[in-house]
Amino acid sequence: MASLGATASIYSEDHRITYYECDRTGRATLATLIDIAILASEDQSDALGLTTEFVQSHGVGWVVTQYAIDITRMPRQDETVTIAVRGSAYNPYFAFREFWISDAAGKQLAYITSIWVTMSQSTRKIVKILPALVAPYHSEQTKRIPRLPRPISFEPTTTTISKPYQVRFFDIDPNRHVNNAHYFDWLLDTLPADFLLQHDLLHVDVRYENEVQYGHTVEAKANILATDQPDQVKTSHLIQVGDEKCCEVTILWRTLAEPIQ
Amino acid sequence: MASLGATASIYSEDHRITYYECDRTGRATLATLIDIAILASEDQSDALGLTTEFVQSHGVGWVVTQYAIDITRMPRQDETVTIAVRGSAYNPYFAFREFWISDAAGKQLAYITSIWVTMSQSTRKIVKILPALVAPYHSEQTKRIPRLPRPISFEPTTTTISKPYQVRFFDIDPNRHVNNAHYFDWLLDTLPADFLLQHDLLHVDVRYENEVQYGHTVEAKANILATDQPDQVKTSHLIQVGDEKCCEVTILWRTLAEPIQ
Repeated sequence: MASLGATASIYSEDHRITYYECDRTGRATLATLIDIAILASEDQSDALGLTTEFVQSHGVGWVVTQYAIDITRMPRQDETVTIAVRGSAYNPYFAFREFWISDAAGKQLAYITSIWVTMSQSTRKIVKILPALVAPYHSEQTKRIPRLPRPISFEPTTTTISKPYQVRFFDIDPNRHVNNAHYFDWLLDTLPADFLLQHDLLHVDVRYENEVQYGHTVEAKANILATDQPDQVKTSHLIQVGDEKCCEVTILWRTLAEPIQ
Repeated sequence: MASLGATASIYSEDHRITYYECDRTGRATLATLIDIAILASEDQSDALGLTTEFVQSHGVGWVVTQYAIDITRMPRQDETVTIAVRGSAYNPYFAFREFWISDAAGKQLAYITSIWVTMSQSTRKIVKILPALVAPYHSEQTKRIPRLPRPISFEPTTTTISKPYQVRFFDIDPNRHVNNAHYFDWLLDTLPADFLLQHDLLHVDVRYENEVQYGHTVEAKANILATDQPDQVKTSHLIQVGDEKCCEVTILWRTLAEPIQ
């Protein structure tokens, strides 16, 4: 898999992290990390003529189903980062896209892999990927694309934390869907502030199952779990609407010696 | 008042409006408009050595108490706008800051006036503005600074719309306060989607009274009011925590012939 996607075009752009993309610790939020990654991929697509309109003219839309996110260091307020993106490979049903986010010295801050499908606009069902929608990326056609880690299947316990969130008008982005980076604000807001101030994100596995809609009230649930490492902890998350599972997430955290003030 | 602040330094910078700063109509949100205005003013302050740390080393912090926002046209996704900012004038207790947001052709999109005070970090009371905190802006020292329009005093009626919002961890920005641009997401989300899709913002008057805190549940209330103009409507808004008034807002809207699809 080392060389998978080696022929695919890499697109890169810079982005300055603004104060309003950061949390109170001055670190970019996880939602921001995904927002700027998707922005770069949309810019690559536009530059190659693969605009949203072009994709929709084929009766389909791209939908992300999984992310696996490795975080070395979260970018901070006022840092300018470089986002590189590549539509690395695809098979008949799944496309594999990678993102590298690095600091001004070229040091890697985050590496994101993701799996995408095309969904029919009329039937809302997954359909075969049309070669015309991937050829301009010089994506590698392959039988097998990497399987991303599946998040832990969420198991409610007596200590599960749960909070309701109304999906707001401003959660819908110009693509007419709830910006699924907003899920991270819900997921992480369920954790106590003390926890968020004393942990750094290390790895995030995300799997989207069903789309949430404007007007829905989602329930975000979280479990805090121990790991084998004394300075690491895991959290398992679920977003659901009624009984329907919308998104499952597992996060690995590094425990800091002291909370960030 | 035409020449008030004519000697003050103007700082300007460009900003590209990203998809995640826009609503489903592709227009920048009101929260984005304020976010990018404040970003420009922080950049001006930093460039003049008036960093947050410098201000805090005097035992105070700047707090905005009022905005009056004129909107000619909301910027759209992928537009690059120019934000110009000027710390125009101050008297012993109030500072007057202006912002101009314009498109690539130099056409004005929005004009924002605002009133700021300095608050003691220990007593949380308003204190006299220290000349050292405004001199580098070449702000004009004056007896009278303009009075901004006061929003309509909110009157609950039987048709008042009301919605609760939990203040989230990610509403707090690196300044350790709830980003008060987020109030606009709460205020406007209370209005029906049909209304938001069939109206353009024309003018917004905002008055902040008390700060909301992480963990609070705020209640956002709205009344939709007629005006003398057949194609215009007003909305009156209140954000409160318990019985405490946090923010009052009046918005003038232009009714569109048809809703945006």
